[in-house]
Amino acid sequence: MADYDPDNIFAKILRGELPAQKVYEDDAAIAIMDVMPQIDGHVLVIPRAQSRNLLDMDAGTIAPLFAAVQKVARAVKAALGAEGVTITQFNEAPAGQSVFHAHVHILPRWTDVPLKPHTGKMEKPEVLAAHAEKIRAALQER
Amino acid sequence: MADYDPDNIFAKILRGELPAQKVYEDDAAIAIMDVMPQIDGHVLVIPRAQSRNLLDMDAGTIAPLFAAVQKVARAVKAALGAEGVTITQFNEAPAGQSVFHAHVHILPRWTDVPLKPHTGKMEKPEVLAAHAEKIRAALQER
Repeated sequence: MADYDPDNIFAKILRGELPAQKVYEDDAAIAIMDVMPQIDGHVLVIPRAQSRNLLDMDAGTIAPLFAAVQKVARAVKAALGAEGVTITQFNEAPAGQSVFHAHVHILPRWTDVPLKPHTGKMEKPEVLAAHAEKIRAALQER
Repeated sequence: MADYDPDNIFAKILRGELPAQKVYEDDAAIAIMDVMPQIDGHVLVIPRAQSRNLLDMDAGTIAPLFAAVQKVARAVKAALGAEGVTITQFNEAPAGQSVFHAHVHILPRWTDVPLKPHTGKMEKPEVLAAHAEKIRAALQER
């Protein structure tokens, strides 16, 4: 497995060098809107600690990361009025990983609404901002 | 969200009432071969504690479950000679969940080998047994 590159896009977001629509943060992780969502309300949970993915992650990073995933997944479902939530986490490029800082995808789901492929199409910032605001509000209520 | 039904197939496997090709177990979770694999080496990690999925899971179940997922994912990748690993976890039917006891999918991946849909086609027991044996051996080496 290749080394961790500290100039990846999520490392830059964690350092505040690139903007993101943040919906949650704690000592161990942040959650942001995916700018190329596969479905409305697509959120990424990103541990602050450096690892390429789950395979090389420190044991101490796993527990708070997935506690944050649960918390944010519940809020995304409530905020978007979703019927379910799909969680995905990709390890290395053949598995679908494109940014090499560990992250977990939270995808709200509705019956008969398929996920879009990763086309590279950017969502409008105002659409992401509206979803982020609803998710932050749902997290406040918890 | 509907209640937990203790007669689901994974609860029966955990109680030893149904057989499974087990590759790993600890105090908190077991890992078994998926009998309808989406790709060779498809493994499920199942927490012993009862919950429908991640959304209603007790906080204390999350950490050991995902520690087991990491351990088994590393072994599956090594055992199958995979180039990557996709992790999926489905919450409620519109998200792809079909058995309502929490579980995490571990899917070894290779470039240009797509995942098969959940067709309901059972894999031959001897094929599952051969993969299980390799994964158990990889776990022994760790």
